[in-house]
Amino acid sequence: MGAEPAVATALFPDRLAEAVERKRSQLLVGLDPRPDLLPVELAGDAHLSREAAADACGRFCRGIVDAVAPHVVGVKPQLAFFEALGADGLRAFEDACAYARSAGLIVLADAKRGDIGSTSRAYSTAYLEPRGEQPPLADAMTVNPYLGRDSLDPFLAACRRHGSGVFCVVKTSNEGVADIQDLALSDGRPLWQHVARLVAEWGEELVGDRGLSSVGAVVGATHPRAVGEARRLLPRSILLLPGIGAQGAGPADVARAFTSGPSSALVTASRSVLYAFRTSKDDWRSAAAQEAARLKSEVWAASGW
Amino acid sequence: MGAEPAVATALFPDRLAEAVERKRSQLLVGLDPRPDLLPVELAGDAHLSREAAADACGRFCRGIVDAVAPHVVGVKPQLAFFEALGADGLRAFEDACAYARSAGLIVLADAKRGDIGSTSRAYSTAYLEPRGEQPPLADAMTVNPYLGRDSLDPFLAACRRHGSGVFCVVKTSNEGVADIQDLALSDGRPLWQHVARLVAEWGEELVGDRGLSSVGAVVGATHPRAVGEARRLLPRSILLLPGIGAQGAGPADVARAFTSGPSSALVTASRSVLYAFRTSKDDWRSAAAQEAARLKSEVWAASGW
Repeated sequence: MGAEPAVATALFPDRLAEAVERKRSQLLVGLDPRPDLLPVELAGDAHLSREAAADACGRFCRGIVDAVAPHVVGVKPQLAFFEALGADGLRAFEDACAYARSAGLIVLADAKRGDIGSTSRAYSTAYLEPRGEQPPLADAMTVNPYLGRDSLDPFLAACRRHGSGVFCVVKTSNEGVADIQDLALSDGRPLWQHVARLVAEWGEELVGDRGLSSVGAVVGATHPRAVGEARRLLPRSILLLPGIGAQGAGPADVARAFTSGPSSALVTASRSVLYAFRTSKDDWRSAAAQEAARLKSEVWAASGW
Repeated sequence: MGAEPAVATALFPDRLAEAVERKRSQLLVGLDPRPDLLPVELAGDAHLSREAAADACGRFCRGIVDAVAPHVVGVKPQLAFFEALGADGLRAFEDACAYARSAGLIVLADAKRGDIGSTSRAYSTAYLEPRGEQPPLADAMTVNPYLGRDSLDPFLAACRRHGSGVFCVVKTSNEGVADIQDLALSDGRPLWQHVARLVAEWGEELVGDRGLSSVGAVVGATHPRAVGEARRLLPRSILLLPGIGAQGAGPADVARAFTSGPSSALVTASRSVLYAFRTSKDDWRSAAAQEAARLKSEVWAASGW
C-alpha cells in the first residue's frame, strides 16, 4: 500500500468552518432538478428528449446557484435526479458541480454510496478524487454504512489525501427508519446509535484544527430528540440535517445540533427553495433567493451563534 | 395514488427461470471495466482522456458480452466503475446494457441504491423504467435496505409494473459485515437475518408462477453457512451470490442456495472472468469465454439440477 502521501490541502471541516463563518450561513440548498417541476420558461421542450430535459435541468441548476450563492455555504446535488436523465443527466451534474465551485460554494454530492472496497474505491474516484488537472467534482459526499468499515475506507482515504468530507447516513428523515435503523440491539440501544458510535470512531483520526472531524453524519431534522442524542454521541462530527421545509421540520428542531460550533451542523433544504416560485408571484430565481435568505437567517438565529 | 396498472409483462423470476433453464446457466458475469486492467489492444490511448478511457471500457464490455453470451444467463454491470469515468462512463454503461440486452442477456445493474422515497423513485426511473419508447436499461438492480421499506417501495412498484427484479443487500462478501450486518439484536439474532426476514415479507406479493419472488437477496458466497441460513429464511427469494473467484469462494460453497429451484440462485463472477487473459496465453475474449464456460458448468453441477 505504501506510505500515505501528506495532506495536500486543509481538512474538510476547517475549509467548511471558514466558509460558514465568512457567510454566516449553515444552509445547503439541495439540487434536485425534476423536469416536471421546472419553471415554464425552462421547461420548453424538456419533454421532447432526455437530452433536452437534462439541458433544461442544467440551466435550472445554474440559475439556482446564482440565486442562492449569497445565502448558502454550499449546494447538495442529489445524484438520483441526474441519473434519472442518464448520461446527459450526469453531464448536467458535472456542470452543476463545476458551476457551484466556481461560485465559491461547497459541493456535497448526495450519493449515499457504499460497496465492497474495490467498488467503493471507484465511487471515491468518481466524486472525491481530482480529475486529471481538474479538481474533484465534489468536496464531500454522503455514504451508506450497511457494508461496514472496509466499505468506507476509500472515502476516508480521500478525506486524508484530498481534504474531502464524508457524511455517513445514521438516522434518516423518512418513516422507514423503524424497519432497520431503530431496531434494538442486544444491549437495548437502537442500531442507529451504534452506527453513530462507529462514525465517531471512524472520524477520530480526521479531526481538524477546529475540533471537528472530516467524517460527519446524516440525521433527519424530523427527529429532534435524535438530533440531540446524535450530537451527544458525535461531539466532533458535522451533522447534516435534511428534513427542513417540505418534509416538515423547522429551524428550532435542529438548534441543539450546533452546540459543537457554528459549523458543527448543516441544514439542507431542497424542494422548499428550488420550487418556491410555485407558491409565489416572483420569478423562480427571486423566489429561491428569498426562501434561501429567510432560512439562512432562521437557522443562524436558531444555532445561537 | 390511483389504481395500480396491470402487470405489463411477466414477473422477473419467471423470465429469469425461462432463461436459466434454456441456457442451463446460473452465472452472471460482472462488468467491472477498469482502464488500468484493459487488454493492451484496447488500452491504446485510454490514459489520454476520460472520454478515451470510457470508449475503451465500452468496447471491452461489448467484447466480453460477445465472449460470454453463450455461457451466462446475464451480466451485472457495476455502476461504480462507469461512474468513475463520469458522464462518458455512464454513456458506456448505457451502451453495455443495451448491447447485452440485444444479445438476449438479463441485465442486473449493480447499483446498491436506496434513499428516501422521492429520491428512490428517481433511481427506479433511471434503471428500471422504460425510457420513452426504449426498454429499461436494466432488468433488475441491487438496492440497500438501511433506510427501510418506504425507501424501497419505488423499486417494488417497478417489479409490479415492468417485471423488474430487485436484489436487496442482506449479507455481503467483505470483512466489514461484522461492523453492522452481524450485530446481535435484542432477540439474539444477527441483524442480517432480520433483514432477510424483511426481504421475504417485502417479496411476498411479488411471487411468480414458479414460486419465486421478484425481490431477491444479496448474500456473499464467502459465508457458506450464511448462504444456507439465508435459503431457509428466504425460501422464495432468488439469492445473488457474489464472492466466487477473485474473492475466494468456490461453487461448492453455494450448492445449498439452489434448493428452491434451478433459478433460485445466481452466481456472479467479475474479475476472474473479465481479466482471465492476464494469467492466460489466450486472447482476452477467449480467456473470458473459457473461464465463463468452466464456471457455468461447475455451478450447474453443484446446483444439483
